[in-house]
Amino acid sequence: MRDVAVIGVGLTKFGERWNLGLKELMAEAGLAALEDASISSHDVEMLYGGTMASGRFIGQEHTAALMADQLGFGNIPAVRIENACASGGSALRQGYIAVASGIHDVVVVGGVEKMTDVTSGEASTALGGAGDQEWELFQGITFPGLYALMARRHMFEYGTTEEQMASVSVKNHENACRNEFAQFRKRVSIDDVMGSKMVSDPLKLLDCSPISDGAAAVVLAPLEKAKKYNDTPIKIVASAQASDTLRLADRESLTELKATKIAGQNAYRQAGVTADDIDVVEVHDCFTIAELLAMEDLGFYGKGKAGKAVQEGETALNGRISVNTSGGLKGCGHPVGATGVKQAAEIVWQLRGDAKDRQVNGAEIGMTHNVGGSGATAVVHIYKRAD
Amino acid sequence: MRDVAVIGVGLTKFGERWNLGLKELMAEAGLAALEDASISSHDVEMLYGGTMASGRFIGQEHTAALMADQLGFGNIPAVRIENACASGGSALRQGYIAVASGIHDVVVVGGVEKMTDVTSGEASTALGGAGDQEWELFQGITFPGLYALMARRHMFEYGTTEEQMASVSVKNHENACRNEFAQFRKRVSIDDVMGSKMVSDPLKLLDCSPISDGAAAVVLAPLEKAKKYNDTPIKIVASAQASDTLRLADRESLTELKATKIAGQNAYRQAGVTADDIDVVEVHDCFTIAELLAMEDLGFYGKGKAGKAVQEGETALNGRISVNTSGGLKGCGHPVGATGVKQAAEIVWQLRGDAKDRQVNGAEIGMTHNVGGSGATAVVHIYKRAD
Repeated sequence: MRDVAVIGVGLTKFGERWNLGLKELMAEAGLAALEDASISSHDVEMLYGGTMASGRFIGQEHTAALMADQLGFGNIPAVRIENACASGGSALRQGYIAVASGIHDVVVVGGVEKMTDVTSGEASTALGGAGDQEWELFQGITFPGLYALMARRHMFEYGTTEEQMASVSVKNHENACRNEFAQFRKRVSIDDVMGSKMVSDPLKLLDCSPISDGAAAVVLAPLEKAKKYNDTPIKIVASAQASDTLRLADRESLTELKATKIAGQNAYRQAGVTADDIDVVEVHDCFTIAELLAMEDLGFYGKGKAGKAVQEGETALNGRISVNTSGGLKGCGHPVGATGVKQAAEIVWQLRGDAKDRQVNGAEIGMTHNVGGSGATAVVHIYKRAD
Repeated sequence: MRDVAVIGVGLTKFGERWNLGLKELMAEAGLAALEDASISSHDVEMLYGGTMASGRFIGQEHTAALMADQLGFGNIPAVRIENACASGGSALRQGYIAVASGIHDVVVVGGVEKMTDVTSGEASTALGGAGDQEWELFQGITFPGLYALMARRHMFEYGTTEEQMASVSVKNHENACRNEFAQFRKRVSIDDVMGSKMVSDPLKLLDCSPISDGAAAVVLAPLEKAKKYNDTPIKIVASAQASDTLRLADRESLTELKATKIAGQNAYRQAGVTADDIDVVEVHDCFTIAELLAMEDLGFYGKGKAGKAVQEGETALNGRISVNTSGGLKGCGHPVGATGVKQAAEIVWQLRGDAKDRQVNGAEIGMTHNVGGSGATAVVHIYKRAD
């Protein structure tokens, strides 16, 4: 297995991109990544594309071949990966395996979702496909309802408060204000979050990530050849993925995501680092409670301790550990298939020192954490400057 | 890169499986494959699952994690692959890469589609997502219409006849009669096909593969360890994939699938064999014209020659080359995500000598060919007895 590096990244602005379709979003992000890597479309040997529910959102499946077509990649193999909201992170791991194995050199990993062409009710129904349709959604629970159950139980077991969850949203909106690609460049206060409309008790509108259009792409290459393309390749030092039951009812605990714990432990072992070594991390905050679960399950805080830490600013930009500097899913937006790839782009920018107004001082080791559904899939990557 | 072998296969019966949902179909095929490989669910290290349009058919995405959950695979990584009708073949290639790379030993590749819970109109619309939604389907063409255009052009350029296409259907129904897993164990005549209802001129109902429920699974392992599990491992000697434009209008030719040609050539090179060496092949006959295209693009016949060869029985069971002994998509059925995996199972049975009434005498080298959409994806594998 060879070492793998990221040699280029590209994003579209996330948000309500009424004037762009799926193809145009993919093209914008993909071309930006190629340019960033100083390569042409002819250099690319394989494409992995993460998309969750394009069939239901816009009637289009087969999106990886479409992406390869749209980007002028010619006749290279293209594979769509669908792992719900972890589609992007899962695609990244497949790209990592393809390069590490030696089967391909230059591999593009894209992620895209075009979500705003349907009503929010239709979008919500489509997203419900991330949970167990027969045994959860069809019985009447909504997708936010699954995380609301986890939030309530976390509050009951550990005394986590709604204000602590709200402080995740406040922090991520603050970070998003510094990110030109973010959907919401707008500060919110604890009062704003607490006063926003109830979605699924105790989760309010400003506890929930939005419906978004957007795309992201990264270019991977073997580390030994990466300097040929790019002066500042970022090495992927760990790539780990784990699964859990789709149904919440089948799990031992509602206050942790076992898939996150296992993927995290495997990633730390592979990279030879611990949580203390991570300078900057993008975690999967589809709901504010999810960021608290992630901080605990990845070992940054003991169980039940993350809420207070966020409230006290420890996870703010250049705090004890900088969490979701991009604005996270909450502030930057959540075009589902794109999110896991966008997380990688953010960490690459941070480790290159290119994160502008939101740069984490002296960032050397970064992590991304991408979750599918209510935790049936979790993907963790760790990155390091390669110099 | 390590050599990779298939150590177990399993299928459900294909057809209108009203009493089984997606989960039950996956479980039936997966457990059969584990039993065939003499392993337990705890031996499995990773799962790839091919599913095309479960979101539109039954509201369920995230199907690989669901499959891992359903089969008791615990917390292993699970990845859904969606490449339209080539989802199964693409999943097999990803499984191959994972084992060949050394990252995992025992990998299960599953494929499933539950299609009969919607009306045939809804199914047809969902399948249209395999083509270019914005520039083809939305303009009014149906998915069969895309292949009808190819058929008309093939007739115009090479004098291929409707009777020659019909003979593909007759042969595949004949083979399906010998396959206990097939949807249509029923002979049809040339007159039956020619007299069946027009779907998209010149393709009639019996030129078209059906809407089906079904699942398939294969178990992969490194060849060096395969004998530990199974006395008759089948070696995968080539795994190749290529893409083409989604839109027919962007292609140089309507009478060939460039992705099939490229994947086929790469597979022959990797295996060190030619078309003449192949004893038995499962090709992607979503429509009868597609089998003729495949026979020509894979080099079994010169351009425009396949129709006559099928008509003269050269591709019948134990003819010059045995094509679609399972019954193909036409006779065996076409639960989209399962098809590419089912093809692999059929070739494994043939090379083991376990194909019962449809056994190809002395079969030593086999091939599978799986197409996505109207040819934007093609996946070709070649297999050999490993003794």
